[in-house]
Amino acid sequence: MKRVGIVMGSDSDLGVVQAAADTLQDLQIPYEVHIFSAHRTPDEAAAFAASARDNDFGVLIAAAGKAAHLAGALAARTTLPVIGIPIASKTLDGMDALLSTVQMPSGLPVATVAIDGSKNAAILAAQILAVEDEEIAEKLTKMRRKMHDSVMKKDKELQDRLNG
Amino acid sequence: MKRVGIVMGSDSDLGVVQAAADTLQDLQIPYEVHIFSAHRTPDEAAAFAASARDNDFGVLIAAAGKAAHLAGALAARTTLPVIGIPIASKTLDGMDALLSTVQMPSGLPVATVAIDGSKNAAILAAQILAVEDEEIAEKLTKMRRKMHDSVMKKDKELQDRLNG
Amino acid sequence: MKRVGIVMGSDSDLGVVQAAADTLQDLQIPYEVHIFSAHRTPDEAAAFAASARDNDFGVLIAAAGKAAHLAGALAARTTLPVIGIPIASKTLDGMDALLSTVQMPSGLPVATVAIDGSKNAAILAAQILAVEDEEIAEKLTKMRRKMHDSVMKKDKELQDRLNG
Amino acid sequence: MKRVGIVMGSDSDLGVVQAAADTLQDLQIPYEVHIFSAHRTPDEAAAFAASARDNDFGVLIAAAGKAAHLAGALAARTTLPVIGIPIASKTLDGMDALLSTVQMPSGLPVATVAIDGSKNAAILAAQILAVEDEEIAEKLTKMRRKMHDSVMKKDKELQDRLNG
Amino acid sequence: MKRVGIVMGSDSDLGVVQAAADTLQDLQIPYEVHIFSAHRTPDEAAAFAASARDNDFGVLIAAAGKAAHLAGALAARTTLPVIGIPIASKTLDGMDALLSTVQMPSGLPVATVAIDGSKNAAILAAQILAVEDEEIAEKLTKMRRKMHDSVMKKDKELQDRLNG
Amino acid sequence: MKRVGIVMGSDSDLGVVQAAADTLQDLQIPYEVHIFSAHRTPDEAAAFAASARDNDFGVLIAAAGKAAHLAGALAARTTLPVIGIPIASKTLDGMDALLSTVQMPSGLPVATVAIDGSKNAAILAAQILAVEDEEIAEKLTKMRRKMHDSVMKKDKELQDRLNG
Amino acid sequence: MKRVGIVMGSDSDLGVVQAAADTLQDLQIPYEVHIFSAHRTPDEAAAFAASARDNDFGVLIAAAGKAAHLAGALAARTTLPVIGIPIASKTLDGMDALLSTVQMPSGLPVATVAIDGSKNAAILAAQILAVEDEEIAEKLTKMRRKMHDSVMKKDKELQDRLNG
Amino acid sequence: MKRVGIVMGSDSDLGVVQAAADTLQDLQIPYEVHIFSAHRTPDEAAAFAASARDNDFGVLIAAAGKAAHLAGALAARTTLPVIGIPIASKTLDGMDALLSTVQMPSGLPVATVAIDGSKNAAILAAQILAVEDEEIAEKLTKMRRKMHDSVMKKDKELQDRLNG
Repeated sequence: MKRVGIVMGSDSDLGVVQAAADTLQDLQIPYEVHIFSAHRTPDEAAAFAASARDNDFGVLIAAAGKAAHLAGALAARTTLPVIGIPIASKTLDGMDALLSTVQMPSGLPVATVAIDGSKNAAILAAQILAVEDEEIAEKLTKMRRKMHDSVMKKDKELQDRLNG
Repeated sequence: MKRVGIVMGSDSDLGVVQAAADTLQDLQIPYEVHIFSAHRTPDEAAAFAASARDNDFGVLIAAAGKAAHLAGALAARTTLPVIGIPIASKTLDGMDALLSTVQMPSGLPVATVAIDGSKNAAILAAQILAVEDEEIAEKLTKMRRKMHDSVMKKDKELQDRLNG
Repeated sequence: MKRVGIVMGSDSDLGVVQAAADTLQDLQIPYEVHIFSAHRTPDEAAAFAASARDNDFGVLIAAAGKAAHLAGALAARTTLPVIGIPIASKTLDGMDALLSTVQMPSGLPVATVAIDGSKNAAILAAQILAVEDEEIAEKLTKMRRKMHDSVMKKDKELQDRLNG
Repeated sequence: MKRVGIVMGSDSDLGVVQAAADTLQDLQIPYEVHIFSAHRTPDEAAAFAASARDNDFGVLIAAAGKAAHLAGALAARTTLPVIGIPIASKTLDGMDALLSTVQMPSGLPVATVAIDGSKNAAILAAQILAVEDEEIAEKLTKMRRKMHDSVMKKDKELQDRLNG
Repeated sequence: MKRVGIVMGSDSDLGVVQAAADTLQDLQIPYEVHIFSAHRTPDEAAAFAASARDNDFGVLIAAAGKAAHLAGALAARTTLPVIGIPIASKTLDGMDALLSTVQMPSGLPVATVAIDGSKNAAILAAQILAVEDEEIAEKLTKMRRKMHDSVMKKDKELQDRLNG
Repeated sequence: MKRVGIVMGSDSDLGVVQAAADTLQDLQIPYEVHIFSAHRTPDEAAAFAASARDNDFGVLIAAAGKAAHLAGALAARTTLPVIGIPIASKTLDGMDALLSTVQMPSGLPVATVAIDGSKNAAILAAQILAVEDEEIAEKLTKMRRKMHDSVMKKDKELQDRLNG
Repeated sequence: MKRVGIVMGSDSDLGVVQAAADTLQDLQIPYEVHIFSAHRTPDEAAAFAASARDNDFGVLIAAAGKAAHLAGALAARTTLPVIGIPIASKTLDGMDALLSTVQMPSGLPVATVAIDGSKNAAILAAQILAVEDEEIAEKLTKMRRKMHDSVMKKDKELQDRLNG
Repeated sequence: MKRVGIVMGSDSDLGVVQAAADTLQDLQIPYEVHIFSAHRTPDEAAAFAASARDNDFGVLIAAAGKAAHLAGALAARTTLPVIGIPIASKTLDGMDALLSTVQMPSGLPVATVAIDGSKNAAILAAQILAVEDEEIAEKLTKMRRKMHDSVMKKDKELQDRLNG
C-alpha cells in the first residue's frame, strides 16, 4: 500500500501535527513522519520530495507556520499530491501560513486544509489513496457514519436535556 | 479511467473555471462540467456528489464565490477528494470564498487551491489520479518540465536583453 | 404560537448558543434546540429545514464556526427567515464564520448577527415573530425599556462615584 | 398588508439599493423608499423608525456605507426587525460597512445581509412578512423554484456545449 | 474653563476609559463622565450632545466597542469636536470599533485615536482646549518634557546595564 | 484668527487634500498648505511643527499614504492638535496609512479621520477652532443645516419619483 | 565591486522589477537580472543563491507574488543578505506576498520592502554595499539630497499657487 | 569592526528585543542598545541616526510597536541600512506595526523582518556586515550549519520515536 509522508517544518509543530499521524494510524494507513525545514534543511526536504514517488509514497502532507513555504517546496520537487497544513503561530492567527500555503502560483498546486487542520489533512490523504483502494474507501465511509451518529446522539441528548 | 467532475455554483464562474477544463483536456483526462448551486439546487448538488464514486468519478472540483459552500456541500456527501476553488467576486477579493472553502470543520476536508486557481485545481486532480496511474504521472512530469524550460528560456531572453 | 428552531453545528457551540435559548425562555417564546451539522448530518439538517414551516416553526437560528455553512444550508431548504450566528473558533476570531455566513449569494439571504451574538439572534427571532404578534412586541418593548433603565442607573451610579 | 421601509444613508447608495425596491415590486409587497442619514438627518431617521410600527411597516431595510450606523440607529428606535445592507465604498471593499452593521451590541440586533446585497435584503424582508402570510410564502417558493430551474437550465446548456 | 464630556457606551468600557479621566484630572481639566449608549439610550445620548456646547463643554470623548456608533451619534448632534476611542472587545481586536468610529461620512468627522487609546483621547482633548488656553498648553509641554525625560532616563539605565 | 496648517507628504496627495483647502476656504478660515515629507524633508517638517504655535497656527492637518508617519512626526514636535488623513495608495486601500496614523503610542495622539477624508479633516479643524470662536461655530451650524436640508430635499425627490 | 543579483519569479513581475534595475543603473552599481522560480526552477534558483557569494554578488533581491517563496528560497542557500519585494497580484493586493516574504522563521531573515517596492529594494541593496564603500555612500547621500530638494521645490510651487 | 545600533521605542519592547542583542553577542559583533522614541524623543533619535555612520555603526536595528515610525525616522536621517522589527502589541497582533514599518515610501527603504523577529534582525545585520567581512560570514555559515544539524537531529529522534 502507498504510504503517506508527513513533514513538519519544526518540532514545535508536533503538537498540532500529531493528530494527522493518529488519524492515519486509526485508518491503518502506513505513514512516515519527518522534520524537514524548507529553510534550514532545504536539500533534505527537496531530496525527500524528489524521491517520494519512488519510495512508495502516495501523498505528502506538509505542516508549517508563518511564511509557510514547506508544502510549496515539496510540491516543486514531486508530482505527487501535496497537502498543506497552515500552522497558527504566536501572531496573526495562522493567516500568514494560510496565504503562504494556499496562494501557490499556476502550475504547482498545494491542497490546503484549514489552519491547524491536521486531522483533515490525514483524512484528505486517505481520500486520495481511496480513489483506487476500496478498503480505505470503506473505512472512510465508516468514519463518516460514526461522525454522523455521534452528532445525532448529541442532538438527542441535548433535546432530552434542553427541550425536556 | 476515472473522470473528474467540475462543478461551479453559477454560470458567472465559467470565465475562471474554463481553465480547469482546458487543463484536463490538455492532459487527456476525461471530465464533466456542471452548474449546481449549494443553495439554489442543493438536492442536485448533493445527488451528484453522493453518486459520484459510483459514476466513475475519481475527484470532484468545486468553484464558488462569496460564502462559498459548494465544495463543502459536495464533500459532505462523498468520500472522494473534493478540490475547492475560491472565486473572487466584486468585493473582498475572494477572501470570503477562501475562508468559506478552506476552514472546513474536522472530519470533512476540502483540498483548497488559490483564489481563482482553476488551472491548479485541474493539475491537483490529475496528481490525485496519477497516484495510481503512471501515464498521467508521466504527463504531469512533462508539463512540469515544460514549465521549467519556459522559465529558463525567458531568463535567457531577459539576460540577453537586460544584461546585454 | 410559532416556534423558533435553534440549530448548532456542534455541541462545542453550546456555550455560546445557550444565551439564545435563555433569551427566548425569558420572552416565553417556544423553541426547540438541535445539533445538526451541515457537513456531518447534511440530510437531517436539510430535512429539519424543509419541514420547518409545516412543523410550526416561524424562524430558524443557525450557529456555526469556521467555514460556517449551516445557516446557508438551512436557508437553501426553507423560505422561513434564517438567522445566522457566526461562532468564533480557535483562530481568526470568527472572521471566517462571519464571512461564510453573511456573504450569501443573491436569492438566499441569511440574517446575520454579530460574532457570538446569540442573545441578539434570539431577540431578532422575537422581533420577527412580533411583526404580527402584539404580545411579543410588548415584551420586546419592555425588554428595551429595561435595558434603557439599566444604562441610566449605571450612569447615575458612575456620576455619583466619579463626578462626586 | 404590512409595508417595507427602505432607508438609505445617501442618494449615492441608490444604484445598489434599487434592486431591493425592484424585488419587492416583483413580489407585490408595498414599500416606501427614503433617504435619511444617521448623521445628517438623525432626527428624521429616528422619527421614521419610532413611528414605523404605527405606520404599518413590518420590516425596515437600511443601506449605508463606511461607518454604517444607519441600520443600528433605526434599530435603536423600533422593535421591528431591521435589515442592514453594508454598502461598499471607494476603499476597504465594504468591510468597514459590514463590521459597522453586523457587530451590534447585545440587545439590538441588525439582520445583516451580504455587502451590496440589496436583493437579498428584500427577499429577507419578504420572508419575514411571509411568516404569517401564506400568499407571500407562496411567491417566495415560486421565486425559489424559478432560481432552481434557471440553474438547471444553465447546467444543461453548459453540458450540451462543453461535454458535447 | 470649558469642560470635557466623556461618554462610554457601556459600563464594561470603564476599565479602559478610566485612564482618560485620570489624565484630565492630572491636567486639572474639569470633566464629566457618563454612560450613554447610542443604541440603548439614544435620546439621552442625543440630548447630551445637543446641549453640550450650552453646558460649557468644549470637547466630547466617546468610547465604544464593536459596531461603535457612539462617537458618530454624538457628532451628529453637536458641532463640538468629538473624539472617538475604539474599544477592543472579545473578538476582532477592536478592528470593528476602529472602522465604525473612524470611517465617518463626509461632513461629520470623529477625531479617532488608537484602539483602547483612552489616555491619548484625554491628551487630544487637552490639546484642543489648549489652542486658546496658555495654561493648559504649558501643562501639556511639561507632560511632554516629562515623557521625554523618562525615555532618556530609561535609555541611560539600559545602557549602563546592557552596554556595561 | 488662528490659522490651519495643511501638510501633505507628497504632491501626489494633492488630488485628495485639495478638498480640505476648499472647505476651509468656504468657511473663511485662513490656512497654509505645504508639502513636507516625514522621510524626505524631516527637518523642515519638524521645524514647521515646532514653530507652528508661535506662527499662529491653531491646528495642523497631515495627509500621507502607506507607512504614513507624517501626522505623528508633526505631533511629536508640537502640542497643537494634529489631524491625520490616511491616504489610500495603489495597494491595501489605505489600511496601511490608517493604522500608521491612528495607532499612535500613549502620550502623542493624532486625531485621525477616515481614509481620504480630507473634507472631514477641514471640518474637524474648524470645530476645534470653533470651541472658542462663536463665528466659526455659527458657520459650522449653517453647514450642518445645509447638509440636513440637502438630504431632506433628495429624500423628497426620491419619494416623488419612486413612491409616486 | 560587488554586484547585486535581481531575481524575479516570473516574467510578469518585470513591469514592477524594472525600477530596481533602473535605480542600480543610476547608482552605477553592477547587477544581473534573472528569472528563476522557487517552484518551477527550484534547482536553478538554489544554485544561483548557493554560488552567489563566490560569484561576487554582495546582495540578492528577490521579487515574487502570491505565495512568494522566492526570497526565502534564496535565503536558505546563502548567507548574503536577501531583499524581498512582495509583488501585488490580481487579488489580495499583495498581502499574501507580503506575509509570505516577511514572516520568515527564526534563523533566516528576508529584508522585506514595501509591496511593489522595487526602487526601495535597489536603494537598500546600495545602502548595504555602501556600508564599506564610501563612493556608493556618497551617491546615496546625493540621491537623498535630490529627493529633499525636489520636495522643497514642489512645496514652494504649491505655496505660490495655493497660498497666492 | 563596524557596530550595530539597536534602538527600541519603549522599554516595554526589551522582552522581545533582547534576542537581537543576545544573537549579536553570540556572533561577537559589537553593538549598542538604546531606547529612543520617534515620538517622545524625536531629536535624540534623529541625532543618533544622523551621526551613526560617523560613530562607526554599520547597521541600525529599530524595534517599535503600533504606529511604528521608529525605523522610518532613523532611515530618514542616515543612508546606513536600517532594519525594522515590528513589535506586536496588545491588539491587532503586530499588523499595525508591520504595515507602519514595511510600507515605506519610495526612496527610503526599511529592511523589515517578521513581527517580533528580533533574532532575525540581528542575523540580517550580521549578514550585511558579512558582505565585506569573511570572519562574520564564516560565523554565519557555522550558525546555519548548526541550525541544519539541529533539525536533522530532531528528525532522527522523531523517527525513532514515531516510526519506531
